[in-house]
Amino acid sequence: MAKDFVEKITSMDDDFAQWYTDVVTKAELIDYSSVRGCMIMRPYGFAIWENIKNALDSKIKETGHENVYMPLFIPESLLQKEKDHIQGFAPEVAWVTHGGEEELTERLCVRPTSEVLFGEHYKNIIHSYRDLPKLYNQWANVVRWEKTTRPFLRTLEFLWQEGHTCHETDEEAHDETVRMLNVYASLCEDVLAVPVVKGQKTEKEKFAGAKYTYTIESLMHDGKALQAGTSHHLGDGFAKALGIEFTNREGQLQHVQQTSWGFTTRIIGAMIMVHGDDRGLFIPPKIAPTQVMIVPIAQHKEGVLDFAHDLKNRLSDVVRTGIDASDKMPGWKFNEYEMKGIPLRLEVGPRDIGNKQVVLVRRDTGEKLTVLINELEIKIKETLTAIQNDMYQRAAKSREKKTAKALNLSEFKEILDTDQGFIKAMWCGGEACEDRIKEETGATSRCMPFEQEELSEECVCCGKRSKHLVYWAKAY
Amino acid sequence: MAKDFVEKITSMDDDFAQWYTDVVTKAELIDYSSVRGCMIMRPYGFAIWENIKNALDSKIKETGHENVYMPLFIPESLLQKEKDHIQGFAPEVAWVTHGGEEELTERLCVRPTSEVLFGEHYKNIIHSYRDLPKLYNQWANVVRWEKTTRPFLRTLEFLWQEGHTCHETDEEAHDETVRMLNVYASLCEDVLAVPVVKGQKTEKEKFAGAKYTYTIESLMHDGKALQAGTSHHLGDGFAKALGIEFTNREGQLQHVQQTSWGFTTRIIGAMIMVHGDDRGLFIPPKIAPTQVMIVPIAQHKEGVLDFAHDLKNRLSDVVRTGIDASDKMPGWKFNEYEMKGIPLRLEVGPRDIGNKQVVLVRRDTGEKLTVLINELEIKIKETLTAIQNDMYQRAAKSREKKTAKALNLSEFKEILDTDQGFIKAMWCGGEACEDRIKEETGATSRCMPFEQEELSEECVCCGKRSKHLVYWAKAY
Repeated sequence: MAKDFVEKITSMDDDFAQWYTDVVTKAELIDYSSVRGCMIMRPYGFAIWENIKNALDSKIKETGHENVYMPLFIPESLLQKEKDHIQGFAPEVAWVTHGGEEELTERLCVRPTSEVLFGEHYKNIIHSYRDLPKLYNQWANVVRWEKTTRPFLRTLEFLWQEGHTCHETDEEAHDETVRMLNVYASLCEDVLAVPVVKGQKTEKEKFAGAKYTYTIESLMHDGKALQAGTSHHLGDGFAKALGIEFTNREGQLQHVQQTSWGFTTRIIGAMIMVHGDDRGLFIPPKIAPTQVMIVPIAQHKEGVLDFAHDLKNRLSDVVRTGIDASDKMPGWKFNEYEMKGIPLRLEVGPRDIGNKQVVLVRRDTGEKLTVLINELEIKIKETLTAIQNDMYQRAAKSREKKTAKALNLSEFKEILDTDQGFIKAMWCGGEACEDRIKEETGATSRCMPFEQEELSEECVCCGKRSKHLVYWAKAY
Repeated sequence: MAKDFVEKITSMDDDFAQWYTDVVTKAELIDYSSVRGCMIMRPYGFAIWENIKNALDSKIKETGHENVYMPLFIPESLLQKEKDHIQGFAPEVAWVTHGGEEELTERLCVRPTSEVLFGEHYKNIIHSYRDLPKLYNQWANVVRWEKTTRPFLRTLEFLWQEGHTCHETDEEAHDETVRMLNVYASLCEDVLAVPVVKGQKTEKEKFAGAKYTYTIESLMHDGKALQAGTSHHLGDGFAKALGIEFTNREGQLQHVQQTSWGFTTRIIGAMIMVHGDDRGLFIPPKIAPTQVMIVPIAQHKEGVLDFAHDLKNRLSDVVRTGIDASDKMPGWKFNEYEMKGIPLRLEVGPRDIGNKQVVLVRRDTGEKLTVLINELEIKIKETLTAIQNDMYQRAAKSREKKTAKALNLSEFKEILDTDQGFIKAMWCGGEACEDRIKEETGATSRCMPFEQEELSEECVCCGKRSKHLVYWAKAY
């Protein structure tokens, strides 16, 4: 049966997890498959990813990087070369043991990330400081054998880009690590309207094999944090393990300094949980596959459909425009496209045509604007810009409201019991305290923000001399 | 050491296979990795694929298709549902048997193609004729466990797009099969300047599980054929195996009619072997990552480099423009960019600047055009168009020269002994003759062309009544 009604979604406050599942399935972003933990990205979900990908790919190219493509498989012996790396990833990789009818002499893992493949290639092509820097990126699928999965947020297979770069000096690698974190932050804030906190991961939470990891952390509607992107300074650990050497300006052999950085389909989950509401999805105009949806009113009346189709053709030069000329009721259509999170609805009926006007309706505020036809393009652009900005502002305010400070562990627990969110608290730098906080509260260290404050001189957990301000939260 | 000289490549006539290997490595399209049979696509190789992908993706979307993304893995039981399909693919799939530390209860194959995954999803989302047609496509990596591999032409993992569609009727599926074959043919001829023969595969050569397979076949410089793209009418075989049913306009349950069609990174191999020469690669302007390369002459003289950089900025609005301002000799640069197949070189030196002119040099003919600066954009565009057209014409003529007719098997063998190429010959339609021709000559049936001729009434092999004209050739 074709759907003749808009299916109801669970309210966010009743059951946030169910709300999320309802939204991703009923807005037709994904479908499940018989492959455990893998999702199908349906046309609407994939179109969102394509728009995010295009926006990020432009930024990656503008900052001087080139796209390449590495193999899907990694021989076990190659993965084992960097000891921290294999320890970090071994528990969660998928192993290919047979090709065709034959058992392989060495098993291959399906890449969980491609540091060692890039490293092996870099060893081949880098010989002199003149070959540096090398600034490569790839768009690929990767696999991590997760026990529990949720669409976009945690799936066995996911899509991402992974940048891998080589540099002459530690400072250059550091600058690159910062540059790409800023690219991710700008994508989140300026394109996805998702505010982020920039900072450094603790030793415990850094990438397996990295010198240090920078991260951007975002906060969802339910007060849980989500890591939106990471950028790692790898130092020369992989270079030493894999033998990536170059003749430096002084004529001496030296190992390269490396970075890697990744951004995944997970961000779609963040976008949903930051902007969505009880009516469904809400997609930021800059990446919405359809920015304006035309809904004809009383479309059986002469001239309405022709007029609406003409409008669609005309607007398609300026914004991504859809039209629903099906014989469903306008009210059904309104609900459907609100659920799909289309930022702007355009209503046009017989009376509007006579008055040379149409009505624009904002997805967020419900505000109705009556607009003269000859001002339409400019008004639509203005309104989309306003929606985009307002989305960011609302998200930033919500995050602010959900960010608290704690001076000791009982305060910390109290806050988490009342209302989930970021907790800013001082930390001594000891892993024991980090572990204890996680054990007692369920919150993990999200990052040591670049913008440090000194809330007190004592660690929130042990009371000893504090070293860092840390953002803590329960997290996806 | 950085390279200070252009490395020599083997001559095509001396050793075509070695010439090919030299070109793909020395023009820096690919590198080998420690993963058997998988290649690394380097920035230049991947940029070519990105341009091909963008051109094809536009055509796929213009013809009403939507992109989706399916899982990488297929459970063994799902792959087995269509019997011909599993028989065709089982010998060449990679099997995942372990996830993390655990052995899987059911092994997963790494997708060699995704008919069954699409089928399973279609079963979920198609219920009524109102849900049809469904026109989906995905860009993905697939794996086929090949014994012998060559970069682009045959690799364990390759990149491709695979379209999968569902229709109400056999005719609609047929029309779609033809439509997408034409899309592929137009991409090959109009964008890649590679002429193709359109036709149908024999029963023996069709896709495992298809009703019939249409193909476009191209001819390489060495006279071997290469299958450039295929489009399959699947009938209702997969629909019956997987239970994809819909309520038709008469209110009865019916299985959908399906198609699938694919186009891969292999086409880059075809482009190389159709257009390349002893100086190296030659890339059609429409997909060349760099269309015009600026080489400053006597660049140490005052003003030359500034002028050249200004030109680059100015031209970058119109064509993909590169500049080599390194301190290598101009002669080195000429050779390097000829090897990389950049269609047009722009030379500019002190005298040119005085005369307000530059020199354009065509990669194919070596022809030099002195062009006034104020006519530059228009002349470059004209010249690129002329190069693109001439590339197609040269390839078409070469194919014509290498296409012969045979009336009996001794003629057939004689032709192949003298000069590789397409052989047009009549066929009775029997698999025995097809097998015998392959055994005795090494040539396989490439296709029964849509444009049939009757060369004789007798099968080239058995002499019985002929049914079809067939193009035969040794093939990649």
